[in-house]
Amino acid sequence: MALTISTARDMTNPILIEVTRGPLVESWHRGAVAIAAPSGALALRIGDVERPVYPRSAVKALQALPLIESGAADRFGFGPAEIALACGSHAGTERHTHLAAAMLTRAGLSSDALGCGAHLPLGSSAANALIAAGQSPTQLHNNCSGKHAGMLATAVHLGEPTAGYWEVDHPVQRRIHQALADVTGLPLGADVRGIDGCSVPNWAMPLSLMARAFARLVTGEGMPAERRAAVSRILDACWEHPDMVAGKSRADTVVMRALPRQVFMKTGAEGVYCGAFPELGLGFALKIEDGAKRAAAGAAMALVERLYPAARGLMPVGAIKTWRGLEVGAVRSSPLFEDALADLKV
Amino acid sequence: MALTISTARDMTNPILIEVTRGPLVESWHRGAVAIAAPSGALALRIGDVERPVYPRSAVKALQALPLIESGAADRFGFGPAEIALACGSHAGTERHTHLAAAMLTRAGLSSDALGCGAHLPLGSSAANALIAAGQSPTQLHNNCSGKHAGMLATAVHLGEPTAGYWEVDHPVQRRIHQALADVTGLPLGADVRGIDGCSVPNWAMPLSLMARAFARLVTGEGMPAERRAAVSRILDACWEHPDMVAGKSRADTVVMRALPRQVFMKTGAEGVYCGAFPELGLGFALKIEDGAKRAAAGAAMALVERLYPAARGLMPVGAIKTWRGLEVGAVRSSPLFEDALADLKV
Repeated sequence: MALTISTARDMTNPILIEVTRGPLVESWHRGAVAIAAPSGALALRIGDVERPVYPRSAVKALQALPLIESGAADRFGFGPAEIALACGSHAGTERHTHLAAAMLTRAGLSSDALGCGAHLPLGSSAANALIAAGQSPTQLHNNCSGKHAGMLATAVHLGEPTAGYWEVDHPVQRRIHQALADVTGLPLGADVRGIDGCSVPNWAMPLSLMARAFARLVTGEGMPAERRAAVSRILDACWEHPDMVAGKSRADTVVMRALPRQVFMKTGAEGVYCGAFPELGLGFALKIEDGAKRAAAGAAMALVERLYPAARGLMPVGAIKTWRGLEVGAVRSSPLFEDALADLKV
Repeated sequence: MALTISTARDMTNPILIEVTRGPLVESWHRGAVAIAAPSGALALRIGDVERPVYPRSAVKALQALPLIESGAADRFGFGPAEIALACGSHAGTERHTHLAAAMLTRAGLSSDALGCGAHLPLGSSAANALIAAGQSPTQLHNNCSGKHAGMLATAVHLGEPTAGYWEVDHPVQRRIHQALADVTGLPLGADVRGIDGCSVPNWAMPLSLMARAFARLVTGEGMPAERRAAVSRILDACWEHPDMVAGKSRADTVVMRALPRQVFMKTGAEGVYCGAFPELGLGFALKIEDGAKRAAAGAAMALVERLYPAARGLMPVGAIKTWRGLEVGAVRSSPLFEDALADLKV
């Protein structure tokens, strides 16, 4: 009578993060991790690092390359804060939305030009303030509004139409596609192209090559001098204004503020994290299969803390608490992931 | 140089739910599903259905048994609405909080007696209304406040102290433990005991026996007459007041309103779902490994829709949209899960 489905035979990623409650592991998150040198040599490979993964917002620093390389940032006087915001998934506070609006104004545009769509600020105090004021979120509150302001500024600078700048065939997106293809060494065709939540195209790529791309970014290896200069300007901007890359109490901001020029890290939706370590000449990329933010953040912090013990204690330990604040479980690295990090030779 | 960790050899659950974006599956959710007869015979078994899983709020209907069986519900005049609220994970609207408060008042208590802790209402309009009013959530807004009001009423009825009613050794929790152990046929020792978010104990049990317990609930098989009567009263209350079990636009409410006495279903935290089909004499239990609500809800609806095609169209299809509303992906059953449901003989 029973219809039994045997356990999966598909390519299975190992458990990276466990969520405990009392004596048991209640839930767990599988994923894949790559740490790469600029050559592509892998210092760490866990799970399937060759399957294409949408990097989502984790590659915003790469998506910002045309903003610098086209001369648009110089033309409109965008300094490190504006460039960091263009690379950020910001919290939607007034500091963030005002700067995004100012970028648009300097390009001769208003927020009506944005095509990212509106959502409540990622930061809960900014979101609550908006709700308390009885206001609806605008496109400026979208965590991607800085990226979109940068895209629009580039179009204006090059005399291109701003309408439809999010479309895959618009020169703005074609330039970004070319930059991503150059840096990853991948064709990035329509077979790996999806549309991100903010309406622009996003191309899936193996974690191994994403990690290699970030290693190249922070070392400059394999890049022409002009691109190296643009990349340096982007990375320096993020380290100088980490509050524009994310927001208060968020890992990317907290860690890059504490360890500028030692750690670059950027989260992406659906459980992605990318980053790099200039001193070590390494880049990393990871993806949690199920897309969970708690697991991606936990795995990225475990990796960063392994390579930079100074990062320990910067972010709260992943406690599972009752609504009255009693600790009854934990979000923690799996034994396999702990062992892999412990054995890592760098 | 590379440290390579091979893919996991641990017991692996198959993929039940896929999340697509463009041409690719972006994320996926593994899990286990059991559909059982009252005898324990499994009509469907996917993945590891023998590993203990915390049922969390999915067993609130069982946790309410002592409220009925002790006579407390009759003593304080709790009708179907109050009983349904005691079985519910409510949305925290005024209708829910007022009824929970009224239950406490009738037992001679105030909301100060609650030990569930406070959180913002699960329902976003209730949460936004509270934020807009500049108010903090109270314990009455906790989705479990009806369950806790029922626990407190039972303690008052039986002349027990109300302080510490959430503790594992308090008679309130010992009675609930006994009811769960009876219905599942499990010892439910400290080795499988965790503390739920609302501070009361929760015991992990295999999905196979959780499914069997729900099959027995709706058929009455293997239960003494007094318990059968209590169970009927609880289930009827949920079908009569499904709005008290969850809230507007939520699956448990919507489906039980449309299909009373045909489908019982109840969600639990960390990716759990339980339910039963009285006409078919079957119970089900499922757990998404990673705890994702989107996947547990998707899998439960797929299962319910397979057995009751009338449930199709009740809940929105799982579309992934941009912030401007364009559909760019989907949350859908995996081919394996679709095939298993298609092949199901009932």
